[in-house]
Amino acid sequence: MARGFRKRIHQENTENSGFGASASGRFINKDGLPNVQRKGVNVFNRLSWYHTMLNLSSFRFISYLVIGYILINLVFAVIYYLIGVEHLTGIDKSNPLDEFIDVFFFSSQTFTTVGYGRIAPVGFMASLVATFEAFLGLLTFAIATGLFYGRFSRPRAYLRFSDIAVIAPFKDVTALMFRLAPYKNNALTDADVTLSTAIEITENEKTKTNFYRLETQLAKINTLALNWTIVHKIDENSPFYGFSEDDFRNINIEIIVHVRAFDEVFSNTVVQRSSYASREIVYGAKFTPMYYPNKEHQSTVLNLDKINEYEKVDLPVSAGE
Amino acid sequence: MARGFRKRIHQENTENSGFGASASGRFINKDGLPNVQRKGVNVFNRLSWYHTMLNLSSFRFISYLVIGYILINLVFAVIYYLIGVEHLTGIDKSNPLDEFIDVFFFSSQTFTTVGYGRIAPVGFMASLVATFEAFLGLLTFAIATGLFYGRFSRPRAYLRFSDIAVIAPFKDVTALMFRLAPYKNNALTDADVTLSTAIEITENEKTKTNFYRLETQLAKINTLALNWTIVHKIDENSPFYGFSEDDFRNINIEIIVHVRAFDEVFSNTVVQRSSYASREIVYGAKFTPMYYPNKEHQSTVLNLDKINEYEKVDLPVSAGE
Amino acid sequence: MARGFRKRIHQENTENSGFGASASGRFINKDGLPNVQRKGVNVFNRLSWYHTMLNLSSFRFISYLVIGYILINLVFAVIYYLIGVEHLTGIDKSNPLDEFIDVFFFSSQTFTTVGYGRIAPVGFMASLVATFEAFLGLLTFAIATGLFYGRFSRPRAYLRFSDIAVIAPFKDVTALMFRLAPYKNNALTDADVTLSTAIEITENEKTKTNFYRLETQLAKINTLALNWTIVHKIDENSPFYGFSEDDFRNINIEIIVHVRAFDEVFSNTVVQRSSYASREIVYGAKFTPMYYPNKEHQSTVLNLDKINEYEKVDLPVSAGE
Amino acid sequence: MARGFRKRIHQENTENSGFGASASGRFINKDGLPNVQRKGVNVFNRLSWYHTMLNLSSFRFISYLVIGYILINLVFAVIYYLIGVEHLTGIDKSNPLDEFIDVFFFSSQTFTTVGYGRIAPVGFMASLVATFEAFLGLLTFAIATGLFYGRFSRPRAYLRFSDIAVIAPFKDVTALMFRLAPYKNNALTDADVTLSTAIEITENEKTKTNFYRLETQLAKINTLALNWTIVHKIDENSPFYGFSEDDFRNINIEIIVHVRAFDEVFSNTVVQRSSYASREIVYGAKFTPMYYPNKEHQSTVLNLDKINEYEKVDLPVSAGE
Repeated sequence: MARGFRKRIHQENTENSGFGASASGRFINKDGLPNVQRKGVNVFNRLSWYHTMLNLSSFRFISYLVIGYILINLVFAVIYYLIGVEHLTGIDKSNPLDEFIDVFFFSSQTFTTVGYGRIAPVGFMASLVATFEAFLGLLTFAIATGLFYGRFSRPRAYLRFSDIAVIAPFKDVTALMFRLAPYKNNALTDADVTLSTAIEITENEKTKTNFYRLETQLAKINTLALNWTIVHKIDENSPFYGFSEDDFRNINIEIIVHVRAFDEVFSNTVVQRSSYASREIVYGAKFTPMYYPNKEHQSTVLNLDKINEYEKVDLPVSAGE
Repeated sequence: MARGFRKRIHQENTENSGFGASASGRFINKDGLPNVQRKGVNVFNRLSWYHTMLNLSSFRFISYLVIGYILINLVFAVIYYLIGVEHLTGIDKSNPLDEFIDVFFFSSQTFTTVGYGRIAPVGFMASLVATFEAFLGLLTFAIATGLFYGRFSRPRAYLRFSDIAVIAPFKDVTALMFRLAPYKNNALTDADVTLSTAIEITENEKTKTNFYRLETQLAKINTLALNWTIVHKIDENSPFYGFSEDDFRNINIEIIVHVRAFDEVFSNTVVQRSSYASREIVYGAKFTPMYYPNKEHQSTVLNLDKINEYEKVDLPVSAGE
Repeated sequence: MARGFRKRIHQENTENSGFGASASGRFINKDGLPNVQRKGVNVFNRLSWYHTMLNLSSFRFISYLVIGYILINLVFAVIYYLIGVEHLTGIDKSNPLDEFIDVFFFSSQTFTTVGYGRIAPVGFMASLVATFEAFLGLLTFAIATGLFYGRFSRPRAYLRFSDIAVIAPFKDVTALMFRLAPYKNNALTDADVTLSTAIEITENEKTKTNFYRLETQLAKINTLALNWTIVHKIDENSPFYGFSEDDFRNINIEIIVHVRAFDEVFSNTVVQRSSYASREIVYGAKFTPMYYPNKEHQSTVLNLDKINEYEKVDLPVSAGE
Repeated sequence: MARGFRKRIHQENTENSGFGASASGRFINKDGLPNVQRKGVNVFNRLSWYHTMLNLSSFRFISYLVIGYILINLVFAVIYYLIGVEHLTGIDKSNPLDEFIDVFFFSSQTFTTVGYGRIAPVGFMASLVATFEAFLGLLTFAIATGLFYGRFSRPRAYLRFSDIAVIAPFKDVTALMFRLAPYKNNALTDADVTLSTAIEITENEKTKTNFYRLETQLAKINTLALNWTIVHKIDENSPFYGFSEDDFRNINIEIIVHVRAFDEVFSNTVVQRSSYASREIVYGAKFTPMYYPNKEHQSTVLNLDKINEYEKVDLPVSAGE
């Protein structure tokens, strides 16, 4: 192990990460969420169903709505059927299945308030249930309206991070670099980045994790329209100072990234987090450019498919070794 | 009374709490709201009904909606009944009660705009009232939509505070500690805490309350995913310097906590407040850990049921005594 | 005119108010809006109808909705009538007025999507118009939903300012004071105030207005639950230093107040502005307390009706005179 | 080329613009959006349809809604027609076209949930499709509600920038000036401006672009109710120091403006950007006033049509030449 590292491990943690000595495994998952499981309380109190609905994929969200719609209609169909089809006009009474199908459609016509009236309630109980089903239908769509709006108005950064970070030459020394780019037609300004690292170290046969803030070159940017390469220079102030290729491979490292920007359409601050583990760091590589002028030289083209493209390079011998 | 305290009471308040000398009782309730009653103006101007609706429990909110729905339909049923059932088609005219029941259901079918048409208005007055009832119905559900969205999109921190604070050993001295943890699946970052205290003191037979800002160790945290123990070190800069167990029991103390964090789903700052009174401070105790690695050592488990668990410990003799 | 003032008028403006030398009349109205009229562009581009709808009183907002509803139905009634009542089923064809009344109700049943079906379109043109009226109805209620939500979710401070400011004794000197209190059941924290003044001065027969920032005692407050008295000490750093009672009466002064706080229910910053003109400043008066402990001494009562109560006091001779 | 400029081109970029050496053409378009094209990923991932819908003009937005409504009804009409008109009651079966027209109207009556019932489904398949069409209709209007609200509640600054910037005399030297004014009835406070410039320079036959931050006089303003003239003084700290009229004409310059303010109705920060290219800078001109007292001298009138009015003036010989 390099001398620089040995020296450093006697330093105090310089970061208040929010994770303690007995936390285990990756701290921040690749998608930016902390790798923590909650227990206790009961599951209903532990879930914010609104957060859950907002984080569902569009496919699952729509599926839940459709399934919910079918289930509610089945439940009400059973209720109307039990009350008796004689309390509804216009039912096809040829056989029980046709009766049930007709009350199911009556239920859906009530729940959606379409109310054609071909089937309509006449008795007291059927009318009463229909009264509440229509009310429930409207409240359900009120909630659905809120969920749709909550889902698509939720401010998000829409940043794509490079899958890997590289250790690349930088001026006289080396630097840890990765890059990110906005991949949607949103307009981000005033972006800044915060970088920290968790390094697992073994000392006197005890394993513990230290947290360090990592300095970055140009931690702020005015307009985040092209890609942005985050550069952490590995000099004597870096906890990676003196790390060899083997150190980067063998020591448990986690780079935690926190990007913040202002979205001009939402007029809101958006954040996105990600992390790089040891196995996602490529030693001796540099990224290749991913944007270039367009044909008429009147605009700049950003090719998002190139975000992970890099080429191998030789690194200068680290000053710390 | 300890020397340190006597000295301190001659100092000026160091906090602009917003509460004055004649304020009385607890300042901040356990739920974080100030313990203040308002008078004057009239009650309608004094209530923000939107704030009121947002603070209702789910059960009461739904109950109010259902009761409101029934009441509105009753009112309109009476109006239609007074206009005369001959202005409606399809009414069961066997007896007055059945007539009223039918106009009630007609009202609900109009208010929800389900409009089966089995019962329909034919006369001018009934048609006119129905015209406005349908309009009112849609506006009501427009408001309900907004209230539902306002309720579930309202940014909240979802923090659980330990019921008690402890006076625990800390390095060479003692410290006041309590802890908090996020109990829902929200993602909080950049949390910070502000701590202050109100101490009631009697001097020359006059009782007054002094406010002090309390210093905390690590008042900022990057990721609030595990529990966070807030530590106020009781050294010579603390207003509690030299407090004995009896002082903590006998003097009217209130610790006021204000936590602020950034919720990444809402992309908004969330805050939560709480307070600890004298009787909620346990002298000579320390919290036991509430998180641990999972079985596969790939993740961390946070057990929320342990948030109040502590064990009794002996305290070092306070340096100030 | 006092010496202190004469000296001061040769100073530069210390505030960038946004108002220039040729601005005229009160700068900020009592309700906090700037006293500026816009011309040019055209009126539709100059109005943000959403801002307009949000600033309407509840009564006018509801009135506009009702009137709009009636007008839309009248327009569609005319269209259906011109197409011909023979394209609708169930119309009462006894005379033209009854026909028109029936098509009006048909229109409202279509616009609200209640659609009883007693009157229904059969011809192509009537069906086509009904198709668009129902669509328009739903979009209209979509917009109404948004407006209702926008209106009641709009973050507002709900502060009541005292109608007058006073020049009161303060320590050895005097101070300009006014007070404010939250009058609704909202929860404000972290309030701060910014105070500036516009003073009209005549020099060499030319009248101009100078702007100064005013220092305040305790410009920040933790919890804004009781009333808050804003104090600007009139010492040698104040532009009012050496002002006599006549100066306050005769010189055109405007005090501009800007209060900012964090509303914990909206999780948003709220602001409120107001202003005090010369005629709203009472020389030689102090406010009387407006809050007191409740009977059980377990809570504090804030009486909002007392916000303007003051008593006359003698002022110390100003040090600057 | 002037001496001042030659000296400056050897300096480092002083701005982290987010644009690199190979970016091409205008950086920020006149409307404030970056002049960048994205490629890669696929187009659906690259588009935030919500951002797209929010940025549409009102006319196109409404047109899309109407076209979408017609298309959906056509699709469902075809489905009902294929299922067979015998599964619907009340269809005019005189000829296929009339049949299709009637199923089209039935579809619209289902989608909008108006459901007159003159045409109603009786068979299983038609009922099933109608069940889903009504459900789809309600979800569609739920989304439309969210889009309407998102569109009109979107915080925007509503600032009008002067089309041109001028090089005007300022104190002893010259200054680059342009102006802006809020043109709607919104209430902006605490406005600030950030100014930077991109200058294309050719050195050793290589063309590159340098970015500089531009200092402004009074970069902050309390109330943005009148027009605001942004002034960048061209002294020895300016990158334009020593620029002649020809330099401003021949060198590729881009002035990038970023204005931020607080909207009191939205209680939100709003931003607006714009840019000025070389051809939009008028050398030797000054703006004429655009506001004046109203007749009664009780208010100020802002004439927005005058925002581009300027008069030619002679400039002092630049100190740097």
